[in-house]
Amino acid sequence: MALVVQKYGGTSVGNPERIKNVARRVLATQQAGNQVVAVVSAMSGVTDSLIKLAKEVHDMPSEREMDVLLATGEQTTIALLAMAIHSLGAKAASLTGAQAGIVTDGVHTKAKIANITPKRVHELLDAGHAVIIAGFQGETPDQQITTLGRGGSDLSAIAIAAAVKADICQIYTDVDGVYTADPRVVKDARKIPEISYDELLEMAALGSKVMQARSVEFAKKFNVVFEVRSSFNDNPGTIVKAETRSMEDVVIRGVAVDKKQAKVTVAHVPDKPGMAARIFRAVADANVNVDVIVQNVSEQGTTDVTFSVSTDDLKKALVTLEPLVKAIGAGGVTAKDGIAKVSIVGVGMKSHPGVAADMFETLAGHGINIQMISTSEIKISVVVDLKDADKAASVLHEKFGLGKK
Amino acid sequence: MALVVQKYGGTSVGNPERIKNVARRVLATQQAGNQVVAVVSAMSGVTDSLIKLAKEVHDMPSEREMDVLLATGEQTTIALLAMAIHSLGAKAASLTGAQAGIVTDGVHTKAKIANITPKRVHELLDAGHAVIIAGFQGETPDQQITTLGRGGSDLSAIAIAAAVKADICQIYTDVDGVYTADPRVVKDARKIPEISYDELLEMAALGSKVMQARSVEFAKKFNVVFEVRSSFNDNPGTIVKAETRSMEDVVIRGVAVDKKQAKVTVAHVPDKPGMAARIFRAVADANVNVDVIVQNVSEQGTTDVTFSVSTDDLKKALVTLEPLVKAIGAGGVTAKDGIAKVSIVGVGMKSHPGVAADMFETLAGHGINIQMISTSEIKISVVVDLKDADKAASVLHEKFGLGKK
Repeated sequence: MALVVQKYGGTSVGNPERIKNVARRVLATQQAGNQVVAVVSAMSGVTDSLIKLAKEVHDMPSEREMDVLLATGEQTTIALLAMAIHSLGAKAASLTGAQAGIVTDGVHTKAKIANITPKRVHELLDAGHAVIIAGFQGETPDQQITTLGRGGSDLSAIAIAAAVKADICQIYTDVDGVYTADPRVVKDARKIPEISYDELLEMAALGSKVMQARSVEFAKKFNVVFEVRSSFNDNPGTIVKAETRSMEDVVIRGVAVDKKQAKVTVAHVPDKPGMAARIFRAVADANVNVDVIVQNVSEQGTTDVTFSVSTDDLKKALVTLEPLVKAIGAGGVTAKDGIAKVSIVGVGMKSHPGVAADMFETLAGHGINIQMISTSEIKISVVVDLKDADKAASVLHEKFGLGKK
Repeated sequence: MALVVQKYGGTSVGNPERIKNVARRVLATQQAGNQVVAVVSAMSGVTDSLIKLAKEVHDMPSEREMDVLLATGEQTTIALLAMAIHSLGAKAASLTGAQAGIVTDGVHTKAKIANITPKRVHELLDAGHAVIIAGFQGETPDQQITTLGRGGSDLSAIAIAAAVKADICQIYTDVDGVYTADPRVVKDARKIPEISYDELLEMAALGSKVMQARSVEFAKKFNVVFEVRSSFNDNPGTIVKAETRSMEDVVIRGVAVDKKQAKVTVAHVPDKPGMAARIFRAVADANVNVDVIVQNVSEQGTTDVTFSVSTDDLKKALVTLEPLVKAIGAGGVTAKDGIAKVSIVGVGMKSHPGVAADMFETLAGHGINIQMISTSEIKISVVVDLKDADKAASVLHEKFGLGKK
């Protein structure tokens, strides 16, 4: 008997009919001789409605209270899914994040999982229940409700799979798997059968939208093999696991685009030691993730420090930096959205020289201007104008031979 | 400095604008030099929407899961109200029922409060917060989410007021106070300035809709003086407290109508000892509250046992009784809705004879047929056809001189 953790995202549980569909899938997995834990998100649209409600009473709602509010979304889904499984004549019991033993730190709206004590999960499984757990949420050691931030339900599923020593973790979503590019943008994108944690990590960090980076990091750290697949069909998905030698035969695994990027520039920063440290410490303390960083020498004695952040964090970054700019004697802080990051990813890059040159030439050949560049061992990212993003993805996809055969 | 517990019902927090209004009221109470605990219901309509969702996945949803589902309603409100108070520049923190230390038994959807440990409530109050608590909910000693059933938020407020030793408990609702009759039915109904627990208890039990019986019982038991008043104006409400001598001068305090009644008849029950006990034990074990009971001798050797229940419990009562009917050799079980209970209530009844006769004569004089009768020391109830209910209330209201002077 295998222990299977399944995660169903917001669109998979988007209405009562779809919840019944998920119930049938959970039951089929159970009837095939497995124990099943299902981790679920809020029904699609619910989280946005709750955020809208919050904004109607406060333009910058308290993060503690935001967590109390948002946690209701998944709690609604777990109850409905348990009921739907009951209606098929099977046993199921719901658990909130707290009830499932998910303990987090106290960083509201972006909490990190500290540990999981799945005692109750095992008790319910042993009693023959399908166990339905609210993703995205947990509680602090002193019983404050927390949420894990965007993509938190995936993280919950992977962390629970690690904690209960699941044989497999299936991430059900509204896409069939991981594609070589966003199929809505690049017409001949194709599904990738297997991908390494590091490759998916880069794709996720770059906004390929399949999964958030920290879920993949967590899976890598605890070696949780997982499959990204669709809840609307029975097609095999993409298996994500540790890197194998044969994976290096492919130079580029995929092309990712992140359109939720904004650029922040702190201008005329005095050119002396410790300035960059103060800027990025302040931003980090405000829990804003910085992505690409570029520092340009501008006028004599000062430099411009430019970096990109998620558009979600832009307001917080600016609020944090405005007082600091005065304190360090910089010229001011400006923001620019309307930019996007386009990246190519592949472990094969390590053993195939000239990939960066190929990329830049291809973009130049199509008249696309590069604003910022960032690289890692297995990815190369460029920041371009938002209007050029889709075209950049398409021409790179073609250049590196990723299209359907 | 006084400690004030305020309870705001679903219509008082029915949309963001009304939540802001409640926030202003909480803040005004605080600024007048009080500590404030606000107990809130789900926004009006939310609970019904959740029930509708549940019915779409299961026609008789599990009560455990129903509690998990419904508890999200109040949790949403506490977060929004805390945010709204923040937006006025004041300190507020939300607590779910469980976080507020409300421990209940395990009877899902109708749990009883076992005890309250308001440690966290006091800590937050001492730190200068308005404390916003989710009404209607609690948790069992083993951390199962429970709800307290209809009117549960009132019960939460009164129980919290007792636990924190509040100076006063204000029950804010969509009516101005307790009326001599439903003002929507009886045009000259007027507000009652003071009423005894027992009188309100009878009114509540009889469906006067202001408050559920057990909230009033709880207040009586712990001698919590409370005021029923409107959140939409500043009019004084109705004070509810222990009976005083002067209250007896009024023969009848009010007229109550309960239209959510159904009649169940178990026909041809063998006329031997223990039959009624088996019937009502089975119904009690199913957590169905029985109201008026009448037993008629019908054919030789058998009797008909008739009783009334809330229409909400009718299905459960029938499901429970059908197998029992066979087991005890009764003829069958039938149900009838379309009935209503009309009651007159007053502690003065104890010292004024002839009230029952006055009531029955008045109804007969208006051609209203009485199907069942039930009395207590301070109330007389009759079951009549639903179509006669409003007329019965009006003629009794007039007969006992309750109208506006």
